[in-house]
Amino acid sequence: MTIDWGTQFAPRLRQAKGSAIRELLKLLDDPGIVSFAGGIPDPALFPRAAIAAAAQRILGDPRRAAIALQYAPSEGYAPLRRFLVQTMASRGVACAVDNILITSGSQQALDFIGRLFLSPGDMVLVARPTYLGALQAFSAHEPVYGKLPTTGDNRTPEPYAATGDAGAPRAKFAYAIADFQNPTGESLTLAERQDLVASAAALGLPLVEDAAYDQLRYDGAALPSLLALDTARAGGIDAGGVLYCGTFSKTIAPGLRIGWIAAPRPVIDKLVLIKQASDLHTSTFDQMVLHDVATTLPPEHPAAIRQSYRARRDAMLGALDAYFPQTVRWTRPEGGMFIWVNLPAHLDAEALLRRSLAEVKVAFVPGASFHADGTGRNTLRLNFSLNPEEVAIAGIRRLGGVLHRALAA
Amino acid sequence: MTIDWGTQFAPRLRQAKGSAIRELLKLLDDPGIVSFAGGIPDPALFPRAAIAAAAQRILGDPRRAAIALQYAPSEGYAPLRRFLVQTMASRGVACAVDNILITSGSQQALDFIGRLFLSPGDMVLVARPTYLGALQAFSAHEPVYGKLPTTGDNRTPEPYAATGDAGAPRAKFAYAIADFQNPTGESLTLAERQDLVASAAALGLPLVEDAAYDQLRYDGAALPSLLALDTARAGGIDAGGVLYCGTFSKTIAPGLRIGWIAAPRPVIDKLVLIKQASDLHTSTFDQMVLHDVATTLPPEHPAAIRQSYRARRDAMLGALDAYFPQTVRWTRPEGGMFIWVNLPAHLDAEALLRRSLAEVKVAFVPGASFHADGTGRNTLRLNFSLNPEEVAIAGIRRLGGVLHRALAA
Repeated sequence: MTIDWGTQFAPRLRQAKGSAIRELLKLLDDPGIVSFAGGIPDPALFPRAAIAAAAQRILGDPRRAAIALQYAPSEGYAPLRRFLVQTMASRGVACAVDNILITSGSQQALDFIGRLFLSPGDMVLVARPTYLGALQAFSAHEPVYGKLPTTGDNRTPEPYAATGDAGAPRAKFAYAIADFQNPTGESLTLAERQDLVASAAALGLPLVEDAAYDQLRYDGAALPSLLALDTARAGGIDAGGVLYCGTFSKTIAPGLRIGWIAAPRPVIDKLVLIKQASDLHTSTFDQMVLHDVATTLPPEHPAAIRQSYRARRDAMLGALDAYFPQTVRWTRPEGGMFIWVNLPAHLDAEALLRRSLAEVKVAFVPGASFHADGTGRNTLRLNFSLNPEEVAIAGIRRLGGVLHRALAA
Repeated sequence: MTIDWGTQFAPRLRQAKGSAIRELLKLLDDPGIVSFAGGIPDPALFPRAAIAAAAQRILGDPRRAAIALQYAPSEGYAPLRRFLVQTMASRGVACAVDNILITSGSQQALDFIGRLFLSPGDMVLVARPTYLGALQAFSAHEPVYGKLPTTGDNRTPEPYAATGDAGAPRAKFAYAIADFQNPTGESLTLAERQDLVASAAALGLPLVEDAAYDQLRYDGAALPSLLALDTARAGGIDAGGVLYCGTFSKTIAPGLRIGWIAAPRPVIDKLVLIKQASDLHTSTFDQMVLHDVATTLPPEHPAAIRQSYRARRDAMLGALDAYFPQTVRWTRPEGGMFIWVNLPAHLDAEALLRRSLAEVKVAFVPGASFHADGTGRNTLRLNFSLNPEEVAIAGIRRLGGVLHRALAA
């Protein structure tokens, strides 16, 4: 009897298919493509020499190598957790080692949070648009999505409280990216952060803060994280309701897959159980290398990343001003990796992508996949961190040409 | 309003607590403890110099370093997947790159398989006892466990077909460890393997083969894997029903967290989607290091591991013969890492563990946690791969003394 895989798989997975993003990424192998699609750091900025030196120090010492290559606690490598306590303190949050779980990148943090809170039919509040990978992680549990209501250019959570007492299922958590959101590049103002934290606290609603980009600010003054505000409000991290997801993928290297969650202890205690059943622990070797690099890297390293990406953002914005039609609108982010483009309402970004690839070999991500409700067909996301300025400018010029032709048709 | 975490968490996680194993592992920090508890390889056997050389080769080459430190495909590093096609061929299975998914250790493979197949109330067939980590991974989906029926010293799957047409929910898959099972150390005979594969095929039931220990054979001739038998039966891996979970944790190093699944393509296609939403991909750096090491390691490396563990097994068995009471029974495994002990029925292994820790500082894993139905309270698992012979012999002598006193009481 041949196996009927369709009926063996769990129902939620029977219809699952790969996303447009995955197909797009496959195109990156074509050297003729200019891709604005990925959320990919510039590999020239990876601290390669520091990572190589760290690997040699660790493996050159038999005692440390025996730890690096062995099974390890699910919570994470203790010195890295202690380092992250200091990191969080420098970001305005007093916490203890038991408030930190090491994850395999912040994608795993989002996956674990979905597993911890969600059953089918539960509600999650998200912005529209929001990070596609968060939607993928949460959607595995078949939630319904409520809107984290936003006004005033997609940033004010004012009518947020209303969502809590609608007839809808009670929300299990709200997911927000306060700094340089993926995909829009926009940030919450201080007042908006305070409102969001106060609203969530009034509702007894956990807030999941995705802080993937918070070290990538190019203009303006840093603002406190939702976790910092909530910890101050509640009198301590354990009395609060924010789960902060951090990562080294943007400031050191994503290939090492090291992120963390800083959260109240009752949350971390459960997440450790999920981590243990998921993959036992994150690579001990990578955790030790990361810890060595993070503690020895010169302080000018993040500044160099910011300087490079600032220049790339400025070049992209200049090219958009020069080459995109007047009827197209886009964000002007103070940080992060992305610019968000709104096309005239009658244009479809997926159709534009097919045309752009065929005519000028320029890739981007159509915006619909960032919308939990399938809207946003006339939007698209452009990454500015990967391409050197001259490549990006040429790509935007070519994409602008396609747009002009599409609008003239 | 303070958050009531209890009601926010998904119901399946509200009662979840850490296992006895975790508490036990914390004891390993005490240098006075002799631990037979973990399933831990001897770190002296890690190919530290080869790993260090591989890391330097990769990071010393800017082009390779840019790949190693960057985001990568969810399926895994392509050269490692190609190498695993050769590995599977050497184990009697013809397959293609698209039949291979890289996972973060084989624990992640088990987690993904649970996610792919299981909804609450679905049935999974498992042996009793079986690997605790598999039960943890599957139990997150609230299945019911059916017995993979076994007779003749816990190994014959003969009445297996009967399980399929009981009034119980239809089984989604059966989970088996054909070689040197964790925790018993026992293996299926060739006839038992053939029966199991034929029974599963007759029922259209997927078989999950956990091959974690298959390279650790110390006596006797290697037997074909369930996947090899099923591929021969079906005429190809894609027409068959076995998901083979492999790992480098026992032959190279567990700290790198590299495992794989070899399975029919419809299964891999879905697992790739799960991988993407879970953690995007396994550490690119670790995959490249592992690939470099696996392809350059001298052929005598696995033989050296086998020689060391064979001697440790023999020392343990000799000590058990010398120091354990006559009324206690244990397995005599041909490979793997574990010996399984059956105490007289009135003895409780958890109580024995508490006494053993207090009186002689010897740790092991009580057997009940390996039983999906909570039986097996008079059983325990002993690891023989970690401790040098003289340490193991002294530990067994001390544990034997506790057992003699417990039986005399």
